[in-house]
Amino acid sequence: MFDINKIRADFPMIQNAKVAYMDNAATTFKPQCVIDAVTNYYTHQTSNVHRGDYDLSYQVSKEYEDARVAVAEFIHAEPKEIIFTSGASMSLNLVAYGYGRKFLKKGDVILSTEAEHASNILPWFKVCEEVGAVIEYIPLSNEGEMTIEAFKGAMHDKVKIVAMAEVSNVMGYIQPMKEICQIAHEYGALVVCDGAQSVPHVPIDVKDSGVDFLGFSGHKMCGPTGVGVLYGRFDLLQQMDPFMLGGGSNARFDICGNILLKDAPYKFEAGTPAIEAVLGLKAAVEYLRSIGMKNIYEYEHELRVYASKKLQELDNITFYNPNASTGILTFNVNGVFAQDAASFLNTKGIAVRSGNHCAKILIELIEASETIRCSLYFYNTKEEVDQFIEACKETTVENCVGIFF
Amino acid sequence: MFDINKIRADFPMIQNAKVAYMDNAATTFKPQCVIDAVTNYYTHQTSNVHRGDYDLSYQVSKEYEDARVAVAEFIHAEPKEIIFTSGASMSLNLVAYGYGRKFLKKGDVILSTEAEHASNILPWFKVCEEVGAVIEYIPLSNEGEMTIEAFKGAMHDKVKIVAMAEVSNVMGYIQPMKEICQIAHEYGALVVCDGAQSVPHVPIDVKDSGVDFLGFSGHKMCGPTGVGVLYGRFDLLQQMDPFMLGGGSNARFDICGNILLKDAPYKFEAGTPAIEAVLGLKAAVEYLRSIGMKNIYEYEHELRVYASKKLQELDNITFYNPNASTGILTFNVNGVFAQDAASFLNTKGIAVRSGNHCAKILIELIEASETIRCSLYFYNTKEEVDQFIEACKETTVENCVGIFF
Repeated sequence: MFDINKIRADFPMIQNAKVAYMDNAATTFKPQCVIDAVTNYYTHQTSNVHRGDYDLSYQVSKEYEDARVAVAEFIHAEPKEIIFTSGASMSLNLVAYGYGRKFLKKGDVILSTEAEHASNILPWFKVCEEVGAVIEYIPLSNEGEMTIEAFKGAMHDKVKIVAMAEVSNVMGYIQPMKEICQIAHEYGALVVCDGAQSVPHVPIDVKDSGVDFLGFSGHKMCGPTGVGVLYGRFDLLQQMDPFMLGGGSNARFDICGNILLKDAPYKFEAGTPAIEAVLGLKAAVEYLRSIGMKNIYEYEHELRVYASKKLQELDNITFYNPNASTGILTFNVNGVFAQDAASFLNTKGIAVRSGNHCAKILIELIEASETIRCSLYFYNTKEEVDQFIEACKETTVENCVGIFF
Repeated sequence: MFDINKIRADFPMIQNAKVAYMDNAATTFKPQCVIDAVTNYYTHQTSNVHRGDYDLSYQVSKEYEDARVAVAEFIHAEPKEIIFTSGASMSLNLVAYGYGRKFLKKGDVILSTEAEHASNILPWFKVCEEVGAVIEYIPLSNEGEMTIEAFKGAMHDKVKIVAMAEVSNVMGYIQPMKEICQIAHEYGALVVCDGAQSVPHVPIDVKDSGVDFLGFSGHKMCGPTGVGVLYGRFDLLQQMDPFMLGGGSNARFDICGNILLKDAPYKFEAGTPAIEAVLGLKAAVEYLRSIGMKNIYEYEHELRVYASKKLQELDNITFYNPNASTGILTFNVNGVFAQDAASFLNTKGIAVRSGNHCAKILIELIEASETIRCSLYFYNTKEEVDQFIEACKETTVENCVGIFF
């Protein structure tokens, strides 16, 4: 059973902050069990992993590896396919650096969309600059949606990498990853998926979808900041270069510069990892599983349909993604700058974000240099949506000016 | 006043773990104020930085930048010279990638020592491989110490980078960074300093020493894991390439691959940073300053002299660095494998580390493939040292066998 009151009671921020927090695509609140996992490391488990010869270090090393198992199970991967990174940005940079830079060559094509977050496009710009590959873009609809037909039309033999978010952080559409992977693989291309906005919100099965790489962040799924994950097919990880070198990731090295790296995933985890963040992520994953990702998706979808309908009834709103199915609603208040509108909503106890949401290319497509993004999570309620809608109604130039003067 | 009992009461792990924790070179315990800073973010401040249009995000963004100021003051740098990274390993990889790979060329020399931690040597191996530079090593004494004469003798016009730990994580000698920097600068070389083992233990003034880059980790100085710092002279940071690309670090980019990066330090901080870890590091820095780094150094030195004297009185010990001045004591129990000895010490409530301590090159020099490292911090006591010495006395092959069978 999805008990929203019980869920809300798990989040201290909901009790303390007294805001309708609708910036969940930026980061999410943490349930008490995650806070407890982090605090427990500080008060009962502090020591380094993979390093010690004493009980504390044994125990925390074991729990660190248990976290790898928990994350693997969460997305139906093998533990050895899970690399802990500092976040989704590092995960995607790691693929671009460690795989793209190593294996792509002049004339190869990276196929992407104009809706990508900076983290899944800028690292590929860099690869292109270094190896002479080029980026091509799949045409999007006027609503910023990619259709499977458009994708098929854009695929060709020179495409070696398809770099794509499973859910766009601006538009909120869910891409059919399984179909995309099937088509990409027919052409011999690999699919690098930005899962930052999908893994927290929809059930993920990497073996079913066939995705080759999947990067995501802990802090957008009730976990700590400073930890992210790169899933990679094990045979690909074995071929890939590490992004960082340092302690823990090498078996030995000598004075002449010869380095023997450990096997994946360890060769990618140089230096002391974000231990308490990894333990917190484990708690987050267990928490999400206890609710059920299918339940989370269905509740969010219901909330989104409710909010979407109400937002469309307002006559002062331009709503850019009425047909998306996740909890991301992107809009503007007619005649009001996005930042002013967001600041006004703040005075009404609504936390939303304005700006270009790190997807600056898309902005040219939807012809709005800035938008407001309301992003819901499973702890939001219809009452909060009502509060948000009422506040949107009151968002006028006159009222917005009032908050500054 | 340095009140050891008051200090020990600040650390929940000291109360809870019931071990004499002497693996502080691997990671340190956290005082309650650090735990509180992290927990406060989870319970009262959760939101993303640099992104929001609402009170929570304003506040946490401000506190995140306050942390940059606090860290800058701690090492006498400017805030704009402080980059938050995931740890010392990333800091040092960033310099090698962003500066070394960009500016070094064939025939240039990186001068280092055989005592370096993997994090300050492996990234330079990679740079050498890519640009054709070479690494040269300053000869060390039989005790693994680098003298200033040896350094002077090894310097020449082709040396562009001096990569060196201020305190070796195995040998614990403090290098005279100011003198090293003066000599290096006379030759036009830059000094990249691994401060992982110095910043937590000795007063640091980057403007006085003249060091060009300094990398260190939060978790070795009472802060959280998952956060580190790279200090860099601002003019050097401006020239340097970022290691990662993504959200937050660019001002704009377009479909053609043109990227306009923000100014340093922001261009180096792509993606959501480790927010609560940075806030925890701020608390750690304030805590260390409240005790005083000079007091910390002097207390540790006194403890080290005490331990060193006692260890030298034992007839079953080979002690590799009796003359170092920091809290790192490296030794072996004659006739007992280092790991077995460390495991035996564990049964006596002593947490020390065995292994090559990520400085695998040095091991060839001191002719011991593995050693035991006892590393003290300012919360350790003479009573704990006594307990450690007593346990060392009992560390015999017979007793060690006893713990396994």
